[in-house]
Amino acid sequence: MNSKFSYQCNDCGREIPGEGIVYLCSECAGRQKAGQPPAGILKVIYNPLLLRGLTFKKLEENRFIDLLPFNDTRSLPFLRTGNTPLYRISGRETAIRGHELFIKDDSQNPTFSFKDRASAVVSAFAKEQEISTIVAASTGNAGSSLAGMCAAQGQKAVIFAPASAPAAKLTQILMYGAVLVPVNGNYDIAFDLSIEATKHFGWYNRNTAYNPLTIEGKKTAAFEIYSQLGHRIPDRIFVPVGDGVIISGIYKGFEDMLKSGITDSMPEIVAVQAEGSSNLVDNIGKKEFNYTPSSTLADSISVDIPRNFRMAEKYLLQYKGKTLKVSDWQILEASRQLAAQTGLFAEPAAAAAYAGYLLTCATGITGKGSINVLLLTGSGLKDLKSVQPLLHIPEAVSPDIHSVTSLLKENTDLL
Amino acid sequence: MNSKFSYQCNDCGREIPGEGIVYLCSECAGRQKAGQPPAGILKVIYNPLLLRGLTFKKLEENRFIDLLPFNDTRSLPFLRTGNTPLYRISGRETAIRGHELFIKDDSQNPTFSFKDRASAVVSAFAKEQEISTIVAASTGNAGSSLAGMCAAQGQKAVIFAPASAPAAKLTQILMYGAVLVPVNGNYDIAFDLSIEATKHFGWYNRNTAYNPLTIEGKKTAAFEIYSQLGHRIPDRIFVPVGDGVIISGIYKGFEDMLKSGITDSMPEIVAVQAEGSSNLVDNIGKKEFNYTPSSTLADSISVDIPRNFRMAEKYLLQYKGKTLKVSDWQILEASRQLAAQTGLFAEPAAAAAYAGYLLTCATGITGKGSINVLLLTGSGLKDLKSVQPLLHIPEAVSPDIHSVTSLLKENTDLL
Repeated sequence: MNSKFSYQCNDCGREIPGEGIVYLCSECAGRQKAGQPPAGILKVIYNPLLLRGLTFKKLEENRFIDLLPFNDTRSLPFLRTGNTPLYRISGRETAIRGHELFIKDDSQNPTFSFKDRASAVVSAFAKEQEISTIVAASTGNAGSSLAGMCAAQGQKAVIFAPASAPAAKLTQILMYGAVLVPVNGNYDIAFDLSIEATKHFGWYNRNTAYNPLTIEGKKTAAFEIYSQLGHRIPDRIFVPVGDGVIISGIYKGFEDMLKSGITDSMPEIVAVQAEGSSNLVDNIGKKEFNYTPSSTLADSISVDIPRNFRMAEKYLLQYKGKTLKVSDWQILEASRQLAAQTGLFAEPAAAAAYAGYLLTCATGITGKGSINVLLLTGSGLKDLKSVQPLLHIPEAVSPDIHSVTSLLKENTDLL
Repeated sequence: MNSKFSYQCNDCGREIPGEGIVYLCSECAGRQKAGQPPAGILKVIYNPLLLRGLTFKKLEENRFIDLLPFNDTRSLPFLRTGNTPLYRISGRETAIRGHELFIKDDSQNPTFSFKDRASAVVSAFAKEQEISTIVAASTGNAGSSLAGMCAAQGQKAVIFAPASAPAAKLTQILMYGAVLVPVNGNYDIAFDLSIEATKHFGWYNRNTAYNPLTIEGKKTAAFEIYSQLGHRIPDRIFVPVGDGVIISGIYKGFEDMLKSGITDSMPEIVAVQAEGSSNLVDNIGKKEFNYTPSSTLADSISVDIPRNFRMAEKYLLQYKGKTLKVSDWQILEASRQLAAQTGLFAEPAAAAAYAGYLLTCATGITGKGSINVLLLTGSGLKDLKSVQPLLHIPEAVSPDIHSVTSLLKENTDLL
């Protein structure tokens, strides 16, 4: 093979050549049963002949292009995507337990979420293939991310969303000038319609756990973490999990470095789900996939059938990942603590990962001197509604010092 | 004088020594009349003896500390503040007019607004002075910014807000764990009460156009623009204007470089106000200050009596700045265009600056080859409500291709 990359089916392992548009392994995809996670999702495999002698230094200098599924970093949107800060956090837990905590703040992306990494890569690939219209099914971060990246690139985004999505969620998508198609039906129906429309109109589809390039974008966070830790693999990474795509992206990044000989070990990844939406962690290693309807305030990880279950499961089993569940109350409380103790206002999904970290601390298994990393997937500004139960607005005071003193006395816990 | 800096009254020119807490020139401040902008606001003046031989290279290497009112950059919050991207924008206007447009994207700050620059400097100063409680009157960006920065620094923030402020506006402030004091009264009453409480409780006050250090923080944007343009002064900078503090900060940054011999010219700064809140630009050069009650959807620049009017006026006259007014509809339209053409979703105040740029383009005075810079002061996520009039959500379709085709046909302007 001469091409830069090919695809490999996550289920049958079959290799599919070609650098053009490829979505699923047609054989395995055809075998999907109702009520079961999709099969036949592909991984991008890079030509080992072209990777010979690749060092991390070279990878960094070339902005990771050797391990990305397009040819030129100039094809990426001009907006600063990725290169987000990795903050070392000094707090009560780190002092008591003697470990280190780092937070990868992906709210500092152009559309304020981690999803920009995937959209940027899909958009760059489309640009090189001279594709002008990109489609996604989404009501949230993925949709606004694709819309924003396409706006930056002069491409057209078409977003299929369940008609029940609240207007506030769609504001970013509409402002970026995307074409919005509200669909009478739930996310799965919007997802299927977006794929049908993609074929019918000859567009390009960004759906996650369908287009294999989204994982290639998401994996860049792993490269950056390794770089920012001074070329060290962390001991543990806490990742919020919904459909299993972000966690697969993080695994893929570390696996790409492992397979190309840059590193020789893998981090322990902790998959954190909400108790009310835990179908991914609950089904790992089970013969039959069974699901419970999901309900959690962390709606970007609220998922009935995780679309990338099969790949995430494989990764978690192969690399001995851990799983955790946290309650909605723990998510809210973690969200409050994180903001008040660090100044990082995270979306509930990211707060779930922090809740998972706090739970792990409580069990005392973080290990002295261990390096722990938390993935902050998006800004709290994206979902102001869900944190309202936390907020207490005191009675208004009259404009005199006596009233201010009373308010402060009545709220001694505040000072 | 041996100290690093002193203060100079904007009105009487008197120099006030000391590096401790200084707010206003007591003589001039006492002369303020009702219905007039405050007098006696101070500027920080750096000791010329210590600046001898200062080059921009050295200034950059030292993270601007030579021209900042504290001693060690390690006193700053650990969150990445400033160092925001400066994007070169290629669009229709730049192609037609043959000039260059750059956007300084300050939505990429820890609390997603430009105000973090001021809060970071105030917080660093407080840290070095061992002050643990910082106060501000605000309902918006300044309050959430101070709350976030204090959270990162382990300091306590107390925010005085008009009781009528909507809960959504206060969410960030409360999440960062600040003490909120809702005040029965408008912003001016909350402002005065915050100052009274500062004195009474021995706190430290961050109010803008009161604490001279906020301008020192804001001026860092000027240093960064000069750096990112490859050590060039742009021809023109479009700045949204409310109370006149941000524009004074930008002027101060370029003036500091001019006075320390780093540069030898000043940019033309264009002060852009909303038509419904134009008391600053309307009163420039007038003998008597008269104001009209303000009303604009860009509420972070909606101001009756601009608190920093006297300093902003002086700067605009001295350095031959320009002024412009834009309508709310132009602001909304600019907001839509900016997001759809660049992927930058800005708050209405920032969109006002873009509207000012578009208006200037229409008059054809930008000049071939000129370098124009736009200050994007905050994220559009901070004010989703104001853009709702722009948004059109199409009728939901049933999940079949025929319906999708109809929707696209009926909305040909969308494709």
